[in-house]
Amino acid sequence: MEFGDILKGKDVEGKEKHVPEIELIRGHGQSKADFVRVVVGKEVPHPNTVEHHIEWVELYGVTKEGKTVNFGKMTFEPVHTDPVATFHVNNIDDFKSFCALEYCNVHGVWQNCIEV
Amino acid sequence: MEFGDILKGKDVEGKEKHVPEIELIRGHGQSKADFVRVVVGKEVPHPNTVEHHIEWVELYGVTKEGKTVNFGKMTFEPVHTDPVATFHVNNIDDFKSFCALEYCNVHGVWQNCIEV
Amino acid sequence: MEFGDILKGKDVEGKEKHVPEIELIRGHGQSKADFVRVVVGKEVPHPNTVEHHIEWVELYGVTKEGKTVNFGKMTFEPVHTDPVATFHVNNIDDFKSFCALEYCNVHGVWQNCIEV
Amino acid sequence: MEFGDILKGKDVEGKEKHVPEIELIRGHGQSKADFVRVVVGKEVPHPNTVEHHIEWVELYGVTKEGKTVNFGKMTFEPVHTDPVATFHVNNIDDFKSFCALEYCNVHGVWQNCIEV
Repeated sequence: MEFGDILKGKDVEGKEKHVPEIELIRGHGQSKADFVRVVVGKEVPHPNTVEHHIEWVELYGVTKEGKTVNFGKMTFEPVHTDPVATFHVNNIDDFKSFCALEYCNVHGVWQNCIEV
Repeated sequence: MEFGDILKGKDVEGKEKHVPEIELIRGHGQSKADFVRVVVGKEVPHPNTVEHHIEWVELYGVTKEGKTVNFGKMTFEPVHTDPVATFHVNNIDDFKSFCALEYCNVHGVWQNCIEV
Repeated sequence: MEFGDILKGKDVEGKEKHVPEIELIRGHGQSKADFVRVVVGKEVPHPNTVEHHIEWVELYGVTKEGKTVNFGKMTFEPVHTDPVATFHVNNIDDFKSFCALEYCNVHGVWQNCIEV
Repeated sequence: MEFGDILKGKDVEGKEKHVPEIELIRGHGQSKADFVRVVVGKEVPHPNTVEHHIEWVELYGVTKEGKTVNFGKMTFEPVHTDPVATFHVNNIDDFKSFCALEYCNVHGVWQNCIEV
């Protein structure tokens, strides 16, 4: 078995939305900073109760030279926060792809990747 | 000794900026969501090298009833990300105060708290 | 307000045990490695349900030269894991004190510090 | 692309050891607790410098009913801690497999899975 075998993605997405969406936001604000935002349940909010919620989001990128970078992780607190994580990335165009993972305490680990 | 004794704050802030600034952003975007943004080095960017960087930020709040909530933690990757963490908080006005911690791998743990 | 003001410790410990105990384990195993173990609820186990549990433990140290080091954080999953975190520290005798924080999703943030 | 595509494993292991080893420790100590230990570089220690080190380890399990559980994450501090993470798991025999991920700041994300 490999870790990839336990990941779920768009192909098994159901009524409840789990797949982390990845949005690239270039040159934002006065500082012209780049951001990569990861959102779970953008159109249809995921349940957010103590019994059933999104625990965390992680963001990874692969540079144009092929190096994998883990940009970090954001953890959430059920009820009190919603699963949105915005990573201030320097800079988006050094990367050829981004992947996000998220963990739902009931439904496991979900993935999504995009090409830049 | 208590943990509070090893925390640094505004009173010892030097040329390099470490104190995490806390910004309350109410009713943002289509969803009218509240956000609490924690920024280290807003005016004067902190060094961001493998040898010297901000590793993470944590956000806490105290509700009007006096309960302490840890909203979560965001970790950063030196060089590749800047120390900005935006927590989607439901909702700001349930809280009477917010505190943030940040950790610099060279200069230790820094705190800041604000009243709502 | 300061972050230290929202921390709880031995002075307010009640029937449920929250204060993280810190144990120094020197020269353990074949590798003669040092470990610092943080345990919540050693004598009286803390509740470990989805509704009420210990979310994480953090360990800090202050070197004999006065530098603060964050050794890391361990997160737990309610029901499935117990709040015990063992940090492989190199080496204990470089430090004059250790502090641990832990977060209970119902009762907030608790601290403990020991002198080496 | 899928996240599984950027993971490395035993098939590309080189002189420097990255694959996280997973050890099942049943009925340990007075409490007869089960532990799952994840070690990186057990035989040949991985470099542990500010420039090149293991940042964190995560542990996952799949129950006999097929549910994926994230037991938690342990972060490390270069130089000061070694990449060993011991998860107190309740209980090992509820699971049919375990997977660990680890992240090296130079060589990316590595995986390993074992059957119970």
